[in-house]
Amino acid sequence: MELWYTEQHTQNVRFTIKVDEQLYNGQSEYQRIDVFKSKEFGTFLTLDGLMMVTEKDEFIYHDMIVHVPMATNPGIKNVMVIGAGDGGTVRELTRYNGIENIDMVEIDKMVVDVCREYLPQTASKLDDPRVHLYFEDGLRFVRSKENTYDLVIVDSTDPFGPGEGLFTREFYGNCFKALKEDGILVNQHESPYYDEYAQAMQRAHKRIQEYFPICKVYQAHIPTYPSGHWLFGFASKKYDPVTDIKEESWNRLGIKTKYYNTDIHKGSFALPTYVKDLLTDTVE
Amino acid sequence: MELWYTEQHTQNVRFTIKVDEQLYNGQSEYQRIDVFKSKEFGTFLTLDGLMMVTEKDEFIYHDMIVHVPMATNPGIKNVMVIGAGDGGTVRELTRYNGIENIDMVEIDKMVVDVCREYLPQTASKLDDPRVHLYFEDGLRFVRSKENTYDLVIVDSTDPFGPGEGLFTREFYGNCFKALKEDGILVNQHESPYYDEYAQAMQRAHKRIQEYFPICKVYQAHIPTYPSGHWLFGFASKKYDPVTDIKEESWNRLGIKTKYYNTDIHKGSFALPTYVKDLLTDTVE
Repeated sequence: MELWYTEQHTQNVRFTIKVDEQLYNGQSEYQRIDVFKSKEFGTFLTLDGLMMVTEKDEFIYHDMIVHVPMATNPGIKNVMVIGAGDGGTVRELTRYNGIENIDMVEIDKMVVDVCREYLPQTASKLDDPRVHLYFEDGLRFVRSKENTYDLVIVDSTDPFGPGEGLFTREFYGNCFKALKEDGILVNQHESPYYDEYAQAMQRAHKRIQEYFPICKVYQAHIPTYPSGHWLFGFASKKYDPVTDIKEESWNRLGIKTKYYNTDIHKGSFALPTYVKDLLTDTVE
Repeated sequence: MELWYTEQHTQNVRFTIKVDEQLYNGQSEYQRIDVFKSKEFGTFLTLDGLMMVTEKDEFIYHDMIVHVPMATNPGIKNVMVIGAGDGGTVRELTRYNGIENIDMVEIDKMVVDVCREYLPQTASKLDDPRVHLYFEDGLRFVRSKENTYDLVIVDSTDPFGPGEGLFTREFYGNCFKALKEDGILVNQHESPYYDEYAQAMQRAHKRIQEYFPICKVYQAHIPTYPSGHWLFGFASKKYDPVTDIKEESWNRLGIKTKYYNTDIHKGSFALPTYVKDLLTDTVE
């Protein structure tokens, strides 16, 4: 017998992984949650059938969503993380001794419970004393915050299903308000390659630009996401991620990483011409 | 009825494309040649079942294999291209008025004939008067050349089957000899992500380093290749691709590209830490 997990990247493209066994299958109030074990990628988590994290390459996503803002402003102390139920983003944040508080707001407690059991590689630092877990809607949580955080990380699912509200104008405006005067917003920003993802990327970029004076996009190679070409948004009230990077300070911290380094930090903001064109296109 | 093309990226990972129809299927002296039509990627060519080019994203590969060396030394006049039967590499080279001669050495004439018929998008410039086609083994062709070329591009298949000889010490040594004193060798350099490809990448890098004083690796996002994370090798007798780039000269040429620009040129040499580690590992 053979067992294969398949994700449709588009109606016409499928990515398929040989599975040793299904470790978990459950339905939360918000979404279907599955955990599989595979030879190629180790244990991996899917939500509503879409790939979220694999043991093999989660380091790429988590390195790039955390260390890029942290090297831009190593003085970050107070962080809000929205989504990120697998815990990988929090794990990377806890490596910074300078961070004093992490508010993690995940709508779906069941995702966190499942990851604590099946994905200790990512969930291992959720019990750090600086981490405060809120099982609430991030959209609602952020509304009440003002001039509070140095960094907001939006580690969301795609803009359909439970993650939809995290791609709206209202949400980005509230993130702006929740940030201090030198605050940074980083979000997962979809892919430029397949049409449906590219449209989500364009919309997100346009909406974030309405609030933030500095608004850039950077990229990483994440082979288990559709097209393998994944983007992050970097929006900021003060710091430019390329010209204001504190290379020496960050390298002095001695944080060992498998994907991130200060050269790729700068290089990741150099985008292909077709991606730059998509980002400057006017879309609604 | 549905028709799906599947490539095994590893024993445990498959990439599958919905196909409208198979346009061509033939067996040459060297390999099996197929051409398919698809909604997502347009017409695409496979050799021995492995993805070579698609109409949708061939621009990424061809931009990066040609414009990186050309922007490093815009004075390049005499070029040898090995492999590249689809014609896309030659098409990009012919956009430079300064190039006087292109020797293209492709072992399999049938690939060129098939691409002329089914992939005019890439094959369109093979009749440029500066292009000289040699249907020979590149390994043998390059042996007789000395101090002749400004640029050698190795646009080969993977290091098994007919492309195998293009990853050997002997071949790289002969490329070194065939190049002038400021010559550049660029080759497709496999992927760092899946083990089998990563080993080929390590071997190629180590062998090229035995001959060339400057030996770097750069990357691109090519979604239809295994893992989508693809590498190129830049080996050179004189020019460093990052510090010697002639940005202004290249931008003055006004060559319109969809992937390449002089920022991504520099950014593409910033590699993830795990890739740098693989490249400095000692392998045989």
